[in-house]
Amino acid sequence: MNAPVAVTDLASLSMTEAADAFATGEVAATALVEACLARIDAHDAVVNSVIRLDREAALEAAAAADAARAAGRPLGKLAGVPMMHKDMYYRAGRVSSCGSKIRRDFIPGVTATVLERLDAAGAIDMGTLNMAEFAQNPTGHNAHFGHCHNPWDPAYCTGGSSSGSGAGVAARFFYAALGSDTGGSIRLPATLCGVTGLKGTQTRVSRAGVMPLSFSCDNVGPLVRTARDAARFMAVTAGHDPRDPTSAREPVPDYEAALTGDIRGLRIAVCETFFLDGADAPVVAAFEAALDALRARGAVVTRISASSMRAINAYTAMVSRVEGAAIHANWMREHPGDYAIHLSARLFGGYAFPAHLYVEALSRRGPLLRQFVAEALTGHDIVATPTLKTRVPTLAETDIDADPANWSRFMAVSANTRPFNYLGLPTISIPCGFDDRGLPIGLQLAGRPFAEATVLKAADAFQRETGWHCKAPAL
Amino acid sequence: MNAPVAVTDLASLSMTEAADAFATGEVAATALVEACLARIDAHDAVVNSVIRLDREAALEAAAAADAARAAGRPLGKLAGVPMMHKDMYYRAGRVSSCGSKIRRDFIPGVTATVLERLDAAGAIDMGTLNMAEFAQNPTGHNAHFGHCHNPWDPAYCTGGSSSGSGAGVAARFFYAALGSDTGGSIRLPATLCGVTGLKGTQTRVSRAGVMPLSFSCDNVGPLVRTARDAARFMAVTAGHDPRDPTSAREPVPDYEAALTGDIRGLRIAVCETFFLDGADAPVVAAFEAALDALRARGAVVTRISASSMRAINAYTAMVSRVEGAAIHANWMREHPGDYAIHLSARLFGGYAFPAHLYVEALSRRGPLLRQFVAEALTGHDIVATPTLKTRVPTLAETDIDADPANWSRFMAVSANTRPFNYLGLPTISIPCGFDDRGLPIGLQLAGRPFAEATVLKAADAFQRETGWHCKAPAL
Repeated sequence: MNAPVAVTDLASLSMTEAADAFATGEVAATALVEACLARIDAHDAVVNSVIRLDREAALEAAAAADAARAAGRPLGKLAGVPMMHKDMYYRAGRVSSCGSKIRRDFIPGVTATVLERLDAAGAIDMGTLNMAEFAQNPTGHNAHFGHCHNPWDPAYCTGGSSSGSGAGVAARFFYAALGSDTGGSIRLPATLCGVTGLKGTQTRVSRAGVMPLSFSCDNVGPLVRTARDAARFMAVTAGHDPRDPTSAREPVPDYEAALTGDIRGLRIAVCETFFLDGADAPVVAAFEAALDALRARGAVVTRISASSMRAINAYTAMVSRVEGAAIHANWMREHPGDYAIHLSARLFGGYAFPAHLYVEALSRRGPLLRQFVAEALTGHDIVATPTLKTRVPTLAETDIDADPANWSRFMAVSANTRPFNYLGLPTISIPCGFDDRGLPIGLQLAGRPFAEATVLKAADAFQRETGWHCKAPAL
Repeated sequence: MNAPVAVTDLASLSMTEAADAFATGEVAATALVEACLARIDAHDAVVNSVIRLDREAALEAAAAADAARAAGRPLGKLAGVPMMHKDMYYRAGRVSSCGSKIRRDFIPGVTATVLERLDAAGAIDMGTLNMAEFAQNPTGHNAHFGHCHNPWDPAYCTGGSSSGSGAGVAARFFYAALGSDTGGSIRLPATLCGVTGLKGTQTRVSRAGVMPLSFSCDNVGPLVRTARDAARFMAVTAGHDPRDPTSAREPVPDYEAALTGDIRGLRIAVCETFFLDGADAPVVAAFEAALDALRARGAVVTRISASSMRAINAYTAMVSRVEGAAIHANWMREHPGDYAIHLSARLFGGYAFPAHLYVEALSRRGPLLRQFVAEALTGHDIVATPTLKTRVPTLAETDIDADPANWSRFMAVSANTRPFNYLGLPTISIPCGFDDRGLPIGLQLAGRPFAEATVLKAADAFQRETGWHCKAPAL
């Protein structure tokens, strides 16, 4: 992993490879930033992943990191690594648009805890990334900053809501990006763009200083190249935060230590009903091949059934829509015309739920989680599903603003990811193949509460067995 | 306090006096139980506070306590003290009617943590008490078990929902009773019946094994004779419970140690707007006299204003109605005719709130609490109000089942208590006088979160200065 790296290959490094290469002195932070800026300059006109690029500040931070290393000063775990983040992570004094017209000029007075932790680890923040308006669509459409385009083919969706995070990591514009995941918003762009995305256990990562969408379902997490990247990123960012009283107090283990590659005896459950219902043939083929690859390393795969999936799915959608509607109530009253049509349509529906059903959805969360764990995760360590049931859709065929008839295709995108937000389980998406049109396919692995290490270990073993995560789009 | 007690006076003891008299050997538990049974036999036909009387079991428990003391075995803090509890505290294998027709024969399989803690302290559980149906009215009406009648005059309300708890303590039927308080259900019967009732900080006492009404506003607490009784009762029952993950982890101080009688310099805030708006003259006169009594012991009373009281009041009502509607949804579908008219009318309205307003009510709770503490409890230690603004109403004039026009008088009963459930602050009600019809008047004292000791200290000092809590109804 620490073999010498030619400068021309810098963009192909994973986050941990870049961090390790900087730490050992093989590569300068300035070279990493320059390689990223060159990729962005060459290709973001097509991809449209960047909202704000702090070019000079990034070069200055890189020079400072290089000087610190030269001086022998202690380095953080992510020192010298260029990153960009979804434009909803507040940094005091910097505009945070939240992908919206309404907050286009919003300057927060606080900095997100997760950004503070990345800063403390030495990561270089190069700017902010395109995203679905207020993180509220699963496709990557944005009426205000322009749609984000899939680096594998710009006619296709990137997935959302962390569109720029997925597209930019896939395009090798930076080594890691924060996304946020309320119904799949990290895992979907990871899948559609062919990168790795981790949503931790609900409340695993602090949400202080992060634009809220749904108190009950919001998660902070990374889009990166590999499971090892996700492990290191999570180790830096997870853990209790006094500024977010909802953040979990469970200790944060050494996630990278779990990545042994040894998954002999790991028990993987596949629930065909719901998660494979109506799945496209290329997706099913890639999913089955992925299970074979896991078996090849000693995992045991079992077909199971999990009841209540439709209730779980319905409750997730209700909880996040109601909470989103509550958060947006004042703006919906005062600025309804400033939302994209597809978003105001979604928000309007959020005002029509009776409160007792919302309370029912929250009250049933614990019992349904216990039931799901009993059925799927007691005799097994991991539940595996395709992240997206269908092939990657085009931007045109999921554009509701252009044609409301696209609604069902639009909503279908998050069918397999949403349930894990209601259940609150740690879930990763990793690349596992390509469809007949050359667009990526994703494998979703979910574990028991706070079993991020198990999920990461399985994903890492898969990435040792296969090379899907090494494929890069030809831009 | 430990002076010899004549058996004829046993019923007039406070809970702590009875406990201390048993502990020192001055009185037998059997004598305490027999005194209580004699009072019940003589007077409950009028009061109607008892649902279930476990006469033989109580006498057996008393005999066992006497034997344990004779044998020199260690005694709990409440050893030998007869109590009865609102019929919504589950004891495995014993019917818990919740004051309803629907649960008239319900036999729980678990025992409430708070009953387990009272058992462990040696208290004698003589049976269960009348209450508002499903703890959902503030007056003491009950269509299924008969109304509970005020021991001071049976034409008048006892207050609810812990009607039997307030009436029975006032009538000297037992030394302490659990009530529950979601909008005033401990403090109102305490006030209307002339006893002491404490609602702790939200989540201070475990709710495991207790009939739920509103997750956000339910509280467990005692109705007793004195602040000292409440302090000892709270010391036994408060504190984190693994069976109720919502129960607070804050340590439980030695509440009785706080009862020094010294309140010199204690800063008391009086908010005239809202809490005195429309108050009856005898109530205002008794309230002002109570403030004089507190001043006589060195407290400093200041008039302040607190904004947002109407929002706080509206949010409390919405939160508890929505959560009650969610809890009762299946029964309302299947057994609507089994509810009293006033309760089904209240529940029906609970299905009409939009979910985003409920989320708004919960979201505003923290900010409104911070604002109230800043305005009323930063420069002051205590907020004082009348517990009930009006004179005690009659059962007839608050009977909605008989005439829906009584709705506004019915709802007005909890106006001054409800806000402290939304705010979650520790609040006590103690007797502070009588109106021109001879019915009791209550003084409400609220403190900062988890400042039960301050509230109890102020109430105890008041009871050292005055004798209102020693008055008993002539039955």
